[in-house]
Amino acid sequence: MRLSNKALQSDFSPMRKFHKASVEAKKRGISIHHLNIGQPDIPTPERYFEAIGKFNAKTDAYAPSQGTDELLAAIVKYYKSIGQDITKDNIIVTTGGSEALLFAGFCALDDGDEILIPEPFYPNYKTIFNAVGGVVKPIPTLHSENYFYADPARIGKLLSRKTKALLLSNPNNPTGTAIGDKQMLDMLELCKKNDLFLICDEVYREIYYGKDPKSSSALQFRDYDDNVIVIDSASKRFSCCGSRIGALISRNSDVIQNSMKLAQARLSVSTINQVGAAALFDSITPEYSKELCEKYKRRIDAAVTELERIPGVEVSIPTGAFYIMAALPVDDADDFQNWLLSSFDDNKETVMFAPGKCFYATEGKGRNEIRIACVLEESKLKRAIGILKIALERYKNTADK
Amino acid sequence: MRLSNKALQSDFSPMRKFHKASVEAKKRGISIHHLNIGQPDIPTPERYFEAIGKFNAKTDAYAPSQGTDELLAAIVKYYKSIGQDITKDNIIVTTGGSEALLFAGFCALDDGDEILIPEPFYPNYKTIFNAVGGVVKPIPTLHSENYFYADPARIGKLLSRKTKALLLSNPNNPTGTAIGDKQMLDMLELCKKNDLFLICDEVYREIYYGKDPKSSSALQFRDYDDNVIVIDSASKRFSCCGSRIGALISRNSDVIQNSMKLAQARLSVSTINQVGAAALFDSITPEYSKELCEKYKRRIDAAVTELERIPGVEVSIPTGAFYIMAALPVDDADDFQNWLLSSFDDNKETVMFAPGKCFYATEGKGRNEIRIACVLEESKLKRAIGILKIALERYKNTADK
Repeated sequence: MRLSNKALQSDFSPMRKFHKASVEAKKRGISIHHLNIGQPDIPTPERYFEAIGKFNAKTDAYAPSQGTDELLAAIVKYYKSIGQDITKDNIIVTTGGSEALLFAGFCALDDGDEILIPEPFYPNYKTIFNAVGGVVKPIPTLHSENYFYADPARIGKLLSRKTKALLLSNPNNPTGTAIGDKQMLDMLELCKKNDLFLICDEVYREIYYGKDPKSSSALQFRDYDDNVIVIDSASKRFSCCGSRIGALISRNSDVIQNSMKLAQARLSVSTINQVGAAALFDSITPEYSKELCEKYKRRIDAAVTELERIPGVEVSIPTGAFYIMAALPVDDADDFQNWLLSSFDDNKETVMFAPGKCFYATEGKGRNEIRIACVLEESKLKRAIGILKIALERYKNTADK
Repeated sequence: MRLSNKALQSDFSPMRKFHKASVEAKKRGISIHHLNIGQPDIPTPERYFEAIGKFNAKTDAYAPSQGTDELLAAIVKYYKSIGQDITKDNIIVTTGGSEALLFAGFCALDDGDEILIPEPFYPNYKTIFNAVGGVVKPIPTLHSENYFYADPARIGKLLSRKTKALLLSNPNNPTGTAIGDKQMLDMLELCKKNDLFLICDEVYREIYYGKDPKSSSALQFRDYDDNVIVIDSASKRFSCCGSRIGALISRNSDVIQNSMKLAQARLSVSTINQVGAAALFDSITPEYSKELCEKYKRRIDAAVTELERIPGVEVSIPTGAFYIMAALPVDDADDFQNWLLSSFDDNKETVMFAPGKCFYATEGKGRNEIRIACVLEESKLKRAIGILKIALERYKNTADK
């Protein structure tokens, strides 16, 4: 049986492709420090579990396709608290940010239409946009320039008649860079001039520690209401990745209306998880967000310090999110990761990261880069990077590198 | 901003398109009998809520992309109990049956590829397959023939070089018809000969009361392992539609592998809902399934009896699932539904069904048909159909029909 080209040409997720090898390693008694996946160790606020515990309907019934009234109201309230004026009509609750991306792609892209994304990028973007027929065109950046992309002239050269959207992850996964308002306005102006959607993935919104002034959201800039589609998620903000609660937010009513067609076709989002998420969005405070950001900033600082001590490692300094891209003194980070899981341990411990190659669509780029997710507390993070240091020394001397 | 053609050409869900009008009616104090949506009134088994209540992780973390080990094992056990021998490797847990359809479409269809579906069909199929670029080709059937479709010669005439799959809903939503093993083998043979996937939506599997011998699943027929992709869901079996737990099941490892790419891209399915669903799949008994089927059969019988008493109404007799298609003595069931919500009540009550037109891709068909979901207990169901009878009499005499 011949499968679709779009499926055959898609890749496995680099964050999850070593899952089986890691299971094997664990069977051999190896303990793994997981820096490969954006799964924070931070507890989900208790009110989430409390709200779910109070759910007492006899039947776990479908929720409305747009989302429950309670969650929609709580999201509006949360956005107000960060200075963004939206209404329920601007929101569709989705199964994670992932489904919001699917809806945005469905609205923006026909078969062969292009979407520009600064490279390296979260590779799941490509799989999801490919699923709806879109083609991802990478905007090249350089590790040595801290992955800077926000230059209208550079991006302008990549536009074609088929370009329909620009996707920005701000703050960025995997690079940890974030653009401030001035650069965001450049990007918005570029999109408005060229009739492009600006799909802005803001799931790491709260975690910004750069110097440039930065509003909480691209929704701030009201002259671009028709262009902006925000991708949001409860996952990282509340450390509830397993809840799969996200949202597509736009003041472009055509986008909402047409997304609703696909939202209705998939019926609804988990009812119980919406109950939990409503409790979270309803009660988030600026103090909580500030603390979250500071916690990750301390981790980032600790990790960068440790990484800079490893000979041959080059670190790109993040200004947001909780990821660090680093270039390693190896030929191929995929091979190195395999070796880390199959042939290495230090005191029965090893480490996993996300190999950089898979964050690039351009062949041959990022082979020696890795993405480190600072999802562990500082002491564990330091130990994990310590293991990376030991491993790199040993790997240099192995025959099978 | 110009949106994608695939979004613009998609429709709203007929089951949910009258949602706003129904909210308005409720505001006016009208009580609505909901026969429009497959949301059963049956309680979710208590062990589902108990299992969720016992969830005591501090962080609601991502589950594995394929599904949790516990749920995968429980699904294997359930399939064994219905005589189907599958392994964990044949399963991907999905967010509802809807996401399993998306994965199947992703694997089977490139842009412009065709998928055959007996018409009338669950309209969300069309929206979901269109989202991945597929084109739904209806297999025409007749109300007067009880929507019979399983004729290889008739279907053979609809095949083109672009046909990649045949989708069967068995038992069928919306027609309530089901095919037995003999006809299923005809369909499988047709698919094998023509290199087509047979995507078999079996979410109503347990609810079969036809006379023809029928195995529990298309998975029964091992000569067609490469062709068969089963769509499954916990929703109707356990009356837990809000849990959004479904599954894609196939012994074709290419299908599983390639579906996993999209499964990884969307990260995972709700962790807590998987905990609940594992408790359900783990403990389902033949007695439970038999009781479920008998309950719906009694409802179907009661509803059919009531419907046959209404002058001018023609009923197609179901053999499975919990839907009844009926042809009404009206020009346009959409207009009639609007009138039911805006201009009618009997003792402050009215009724909603799903207008038939939207279950047809072929223009002009099904205008006077409706789908009735027997999701209420018998006395309420009888009252709801009683209201339909009164409404039809009154509608006949209104000027604005």
